[in-house]
Amino acid sequence: MSEISVTVVRNILEAQDRIAKSNRKLFEDHKVFVLNLMSSPGAGKTSLLERTIEAMKSSYRIAVIEGDIQSQEDALRIKRLGVETIQINTGGACHLDANMIQSALEKIPLNAYDFLIIENVGNLVCPAEFDLGEHEKAMILSVTEGDDKPLKYPLMFQKSSVLLINKIDLIPYVTFNTERVKKTVSELNPRIQVLEISCKTGEGIDKWVEWLRNRISLCKH
Amino acid sequence: MSEISVTVVRNILEAQDRIAKSNRKLFEDHKVFVLNLMSSPGAGKTSLLERTIEAMKSSYRIAVIEGDIQSQEDALRIKRLGVETIQINTGGACHLDANMIQSALEKIPLNAYDFLIIENVGNLVCPAEFDLGEHEKAMILSVTEGDDKPLKYPLMFQKSSVLLINKIDLIPYVTFNTERVKKTVSELNPRIQVLEISCKTGEGIDKWVEWLRNRISLCKH
Repeated sequence: MSEISVTVVRNILEAQDRIAKSNRKLFEDHKVFVLNLMSSPGAGKTSLLERTIEAMKSSYRIAVIEGDIQSQEDALRIKRLGVETIQINTGGACHLDANMIQSALEKIPLNAYDFLIIENVGNLVCPAEFDLGEHEKAMILSVTEGDDKPLKYPLMFQKSSVLLINKIDLIPYVTFNTERVKKTVSELNPRIQVLEISCKTGEGIDKWVEWLRNRISLCKH
Repeated sequence: MSEISVTVVRNILEAQDRIAKSNRKLFEDHKVFVLNLMSSPGAGKTSLLERTIEAMKSSYRIAVIEGDIQSQEDALRIKRLGVETIQINTGGACHLDANMIQSALEKIPLNAYDFLIIENVGNLVCPAEFDLGEHEKAMILSVTEGDDKPLKYPLMFQKSSVLLINKIDLIPYVTFNTERVKKTVSELNPRIQVLEISCKTGEGIDKWVEWLRNRISLCKH
């Protein structure tokens, strides 16, 4: 890249960092726990949101930001659960950035919520590079994607606090070595917590909800 | 974006376009059919390559360019089949571009091949935006990703000549409406051909190979 290109890219990234910091301060001032949920397309982000909201909406005030390139499909699924949902359509962009979140926050009265979930665009690569101002990043890997993914797409595994291995109900029908994934992931990111779940059967969702309750409670103090 | 940013981005894109054109001319001069294979992570690109190479290597001289962010896993799988394989590690980038292909071509004597397959980085978004100089783009959607994907990630479906619906052996265990996908996809891209396959059982691979044979034969004339 030319010197001008490098300067332009650096300026854009610095502006994004400033906005992420400002988002984070807003979340902390309002004591709202904010989660950035990432995965490949179809790994089960929206299904996990449905399970999570069903389990938690009686105890917590929850809002959702739905990131999609286009369409309102996921936002409609979440709105049906009676939860405040803001749709961001990136119009082509392959990830959410701090600026898009800042604009969405204009429509969300943060003092009315305990927990804000941001569902990122389905993409195992780019979303991991962008700080939105969230407290934690969580990611899903579904067993149908294969157990070689941490080696091939390491950044998201390195940046996430929790890895949810989803669709474990399909393990009998695919080739997926859970222990191989756990080993590779712990080498990439020794602090990551790994939870095995099935959004279809509900298995393992209790442990995920427990992790979220602890994190929300930390934000209140 | 500032005026300088717009100019820089435009210059980069124009340079990429020039390189893609130069790659395309090289492929045409050597009468090599070049396919750009794209999908989400874990949809089955490498498994499809294995099936394709097994079915075609006795009749065609095949080379493969493997695109991955990092790791050599996929290239090793393909090399085992006795086929010339060049690994590109993008070092973070979420897609291949024409420039990376141009560099890889320095290592491939094109006149020794009939068919070059480029396996792109696993990503349902960004690779669709980049012309590598290929003749055709093909994409895989696996049934475990869900039948709502064409609506949510339309560009790749619009740019591809063939959509391979993979993992049809798993249809009994997931919620996937093939007719819904076909309808949405034909609205997005009336020219697209849809083939239903299972890289696990081999079902449907014959139709895919037939499509490839026709395309390779067109390049020879």
